Order: sequence, then C-alpha cells, then structure tokens
Amino acid sequence: MTTQTSIDLRHKASLIEAQWSPRVVAEMNDYQFKVVRIEGDFIWHDHQDTDEAFLVLEGQLRIDMRHGSVLLGPGELYVVPRGVEHKPYAEKEVRLMLIEPRGVLNTGHEGGERTAQNDLWI
Amino acid sequence: MTTQTSIDLRHKASLIEAQWSPRVVAEMNDYQFKVVRIEGDFIWHDHQDTDEAFLVLEGQLRIDMRHGSVLLGPGELYVVPRGVEHKPYAEKEVRLMLIEPRGVLNTGHEGGERTAQNDLWI
Repeated sequence: MTTQTSIDLRHKASLIEAQWSPRVVAEMNDYQFKVVRIEGDFIWHDHQDTDEAFLVLEGQLRIDMRHGSVLLGPGELYVVPRGVEHKPYAEKEVRLMLIEPRGVLNTGHEGGERTAQNDLWI
Repeated sequence: MTTQTSIDLRHKASLIEAQWSPRVVAEMNDYQFKVVRIEGDFIWHDHQDTDEAFLVLEGQLRIDMRHGSVLLGPGELYVVPRGVEHKPYAEKEVRLMLIEPRGVLNTGHEGGERTAQNDLWI
C-alpha cells in the first residue's frame, strides 16, 4: 500500500506568486481545477461555451453581473451560467478555486492585458 | 440590481437528513456538485466512464484504492481517475462535496442496497 497525495487548496493558493494568475491543481476528465489570488477589479467578460464555477477558499469575493451580484465567503460556491457577463471583484485579496473546461481563458473572448497565460500548474 | 444567492456548502450538507444520500446543490454544464454526509465503510466500486472529484468540507475522509489510499481533511481535493476501484471510508462522520457528470451512480455499476437515489437536490 502506498499513500497518495491529497491537494490542499489553500496551501496551493499560498504558493502562487502573483495575483490574477490562475494555476491548475488537478484535472477531472476535460475539466480543470484552478486556484487563484485576486484583489481589486477584473474586466467584464463572459464565456459563450461554458458555465464557470467559483468556490471561495479565503476572503470575500463579489461577482458582479449585469442583472445583479453575488457575495461569496469561504466554503461558498457559485456557478456563472454560460453567456452571462460577469466581473469578479475583491476589496481585499481573496483566494478561490475555479472549475471549468480545459482551455477556458480568464478573459473569455475579450483578450487584452488582463488575459493570463493558460494551463500553468502549481 | 438584485442579489443572487451563493451556495454555502457546509450549510447544505447540514440539511441532509441521512448519511450516504448525496444531494445536488448546483450544476455546471453537464456536471453536478453534490454534498453528502458519510460515516463508516462504503463498497468497492469504480466508474468506467468518468473521473470523480472529492472535496472534504468537514471531518476526515480516507479513500482506499487497490494500490494505496489517500487521506483528505477540510479544504483538500482528490480526483479518483476513471476505472480506478475505490472505497470511501470515514471513522467519524465526514461531510464532503462530489463533482461528477450528471447521472453517475454512487456505486458505479455494482448496484445493490448501497445505491442511492440519483439527482435529488437540496
């Protein structure tokens, strides 16, 4: 018997050097689990081809949408439906996990300087 | 602006009446997020068509596999690859979230009395 290794999500998030730089920690079929540290405002974007799940690990996240917003604390989950414009915001740093299909860009199809390199692992 | 509702995973798990009865709390594309309370031993089974993700919310989970085992505490994630036989075990009650495609049965193709009704929401 050997012992396999679990993935400590908060520890993984603590290893990321820069904010707004998602890092893959595991895969499930063609989906990826990514951890990220964010603070401040992101850009409005959507994902035309997929829903996107947010699970907060530490801190408080607000997801603004055109029709409202949602507040997420530690242990809270929200799924942004495909095609729904959204803008993550955190007054102070929040650490969270994203779950989405492999290949999804953080800025959707908006592009620009806020687009992070994809498929980097930690 | 209206306020959307986040999903408090630990609270959802606390609402489930019986152990070994997964309840769906959200969907992402054709995947489901399920919370479940388990204690004791499950049966050996596998899922031939899909990986299965386990995220512990409260307590300690051990997943036995034929080639080893993995221990998971709160905030820890593990993905059992498709086709890998596994048997969840918890000495004391553990509350966790499962992530897997809609339609996956808790006992895989083993059937039997431990098979839970599928697609029940909470």
